[in-house]
Amino acid sequence: MEERYFEDLKVGDRFKSGTYNVTEEEIISFAGEFDPQPFHLDTAVARQTMFKELIASGWHTAAITMRLFVQMLNCAEGAIGLGVDELRWPNAVKPNDVLQVEVEIVDLRESRSKPSHGVVRLRYVTTNQRGDIVQTMFASALVLRRNK
Amino acid sequence: MEERYFEDLKVGDRFKSGTYNVTEEEIISFAGEFDPQPFHLDTAVARQTMFKELIASGWHTAAITMRLFVQMLNCAEGAIGLGVDELRWPNAVKPNDVLQVEVEIVDLRESRSKPSHGVVRLRYVTTNQRGDIVQTMFASALVLRRNK
Repeated sequence: MEERYFEDLKVGDRFKSGTYNVTEEEIISFAGEFDPQPFHLDTAVARQTMFKELIASGWHTAAITMRLFVQMLNCAEGAIGLGVDELRWPNAVKPNDVLQVEVEIVDLRESRSKPSHGVVRLRYVTTNQRGDIVQTMFASALVLRRNK
Repeated sequence: MEERYFEDLKVGDRFKSGTYNVTEEEIISFAGEFDPQPFHLDTAVARQTMFKELIASGWHTAAITMRLFVQMLNCAEGAIGLGVDELRWPNAVKPNDVLQVEVEIVDLRESRSKPSHGVVRLRYVTTNQRGDIVQTMFASALVLRRNK
């Protein structure tokens, strides 16, 4: 796949990622390292919570979303994250969910501080295999300009 | 440490976490799994970027912040993340940084949908060993009420 530069992107462009299978083992391992709360760590305990089963940390969902995004957009020299707004987890991610990300470019502007780069604003929607939305957010990133 | 309930929290309360040492090995391993971009994966490549050295994924910084937060606040039955706003990474995290999180409670309200819980709004600031701010955000979470 060819690398993308800032000039290759247009407002309204949409991109759909590949898919990612989330395993129970992975949910527990991520939570053990970064979000050691009972409903992310132990299936028996999780059954007694409002979720009724083991759920992934929202930060795990966010990290998987990033992985799917990087592989999808393939920006030359990468996309440098500046910030994220309105990050929401409307439905929990559970073992054996298959996640997919769709992004839409909502704004493009030159970078004042880094003339070699442009600033891309994206809307992300992460869904599971049933089409339930598990995460939404807006994020801005620096992307390299061509011949700069 | 005693577990905290919604009623134990007051607007304006501040909490400071323990510390977390970020290793180069960990930065590369997290990035390999979730954010496989050159400046997170390869020290030699990273030297030629605007960062001049290897930097951690912002999602790695966010995940470490969550880990420090969970251990610090110790909410009874955990804190269930609802969403995050204004997540920013003003400075990069680098190998051997030592991170610490400070949170302030900025709002408390009852949950309309879950009367057993309250909604806590927090402002998070993550700093390194020099006091540089590496991440800021606002986040809302459900926390269990006492005797509900």
